[in-house]
Amino acid sequence: ELCQMTCALFSSKPLLGKKVVITAGPTREAIDPVRYLSNHSSGKMGYAIAHAASLAGASVTLISGPVSLEPPANITVVNVNSALEMYSAAHENLEQCDVFIGTAAVADYRPQNTAHQKMKKDQQGDLLNLPLVENPDIIASVAKSEQRPACVIAFAAETQDLENYALRKLEKKAVDAVVANDVSRSDIGFGSERNEVLWVTKDSRQRFGPETKTQVAHFIIHSVTEMLRT
Amino acid sequence: ELCQMTCALFSSKPLLGKKVVITAGPTREAIDPVRYLSNHSSGKMGYAIAHAASLAGASVTLISGPVSLEPPANITVVNVNSALEMYSAAHENLEQCDVFIGTAAVADYRPQNTAHQKMKKDQQGDLLNLPLVENPDIIASVAKSEQRPACVIAFAAETQDLENYALRKLEKKAVDAVVANDVSRSDIGFGSERNEVLWVTKDSRQRFGPETKTQVAHFIIHSVTEMLRT
Repeated sequence: ELCQMTCALFSSKPLLGKKVVITAGPTREAIDPVRYLSNHSSGKMGYAIAHAASLAGASVTLISGPVSLEPPANITVVNVNSALEMYSAAHENLEQCDVFIGTAAVADYRPQNTAHQKMKKDQQGDLLNLPLVENPDIIASVAKSEQRPACVIAFAAETQDLENYALRKLEKKAVDAVVANDVSRSDIGFGSERNEVLWVTKDSRQRFGPETKTQVAHFIIHSVTEMLRT
Repeated sequence: ELCQMTCALFSSKPLLGKKVVITAGPTREAIDPVRYLSNHSSGKMGYAIAHAASLAGASVTLISGPVSLEPPANITVVNVNSALEMYSAAHENLEQCDVFIGTAAVADYRPQNTAHQKMKKDQQGDLLNLPLVENPDIIASVAKSEQRPACVIAFAAETQDLENYALRKLEKKAVDAVVANDVSRSDIGFGSERNEVLWVTKDSRQRFGPETKTQVAHFIIHSVTEMLRT
């Protein structure tokens, strides 16, 4: 069945003529010229989805945070560091975009101030508060924009209660589907080669995996083409 | 002259029978299971020094934070994530250590609390304080320990006023030399293949580079052998 799905995807090119924009990887939020806040996203899931979308015939733009992956062939890559840069790049690429898939692990918060010089420990005490401000919600802003793509997909990296968080995210962010995965499991998710996901829409749930991230990417692109068809 | 220095280093094996411990790379300080504080250290300088020390005949232990580098051959590598793990690994490897070189960009601060579940944005406001506590000073604790190696070298990544900061660090941390470099320059230092350093001891200053990190590593190991001889 896996093979059928994959073969159908790449022989019939169901996304031919479609523009797909994908965000991937972590963001880095600068504290000063050398220090930053980040997270454990490897970018592998997003890069695999970009590759799958390209094989399915789509014109693909990959907006990528700092990762150590080779960019897939035939894909436009826009490299960014911070959440604010990713936000701008996302909105600059919405024109005639049909599908937007937010796989990036965007930092929810950034340091309120970025120091231009490296902060010296001498200037600080033993305890220190790092004031943070909330970053804009990229996927929600895309889903609510005037240039909203037909299909907007969010990812949810959770450590508990996947389905409830996915449903809440679906509504709050006004997206068409949420792909939830459990990042507390060491066998799947962040940094791993494999993943297990729960595909949640308004009226469906589908569990897929554990499978390689390539297979999970095919499942997601297959689900997206089904969604575009209806 | 470069070649002379390098050739002398590797033909006469001046560090034969010596144990050298080197820290390298950044540390990562966990905020919760997915988020962390870190910095832009690539680990290249430390790995190059480890390789140079090994070629000079030393028995080398490399205590490495998370980097994407191949460990050099014939070197014992101890992988760590946080500053506290690096501190423990450093002290566990001091026995019969002759030279300790701290190239790691150790996080000065870590989050006061590490959440066991991923923190949800819903539970927070638009503004947030991340309370931090100071990490132990690894290089100073090594230099002041009962098992102090004969030669303790600190690195200083600065963005201004290199020599003054280096001198202050030399005294405060009780080390034998400080290798200072300017990380605000994009042509050298963090992530770059090249580096320019200022070697500062109680009674000498020596500027070296810009050169490849391999050449800078040879310069440092050469300076260390000179220091052990006197």
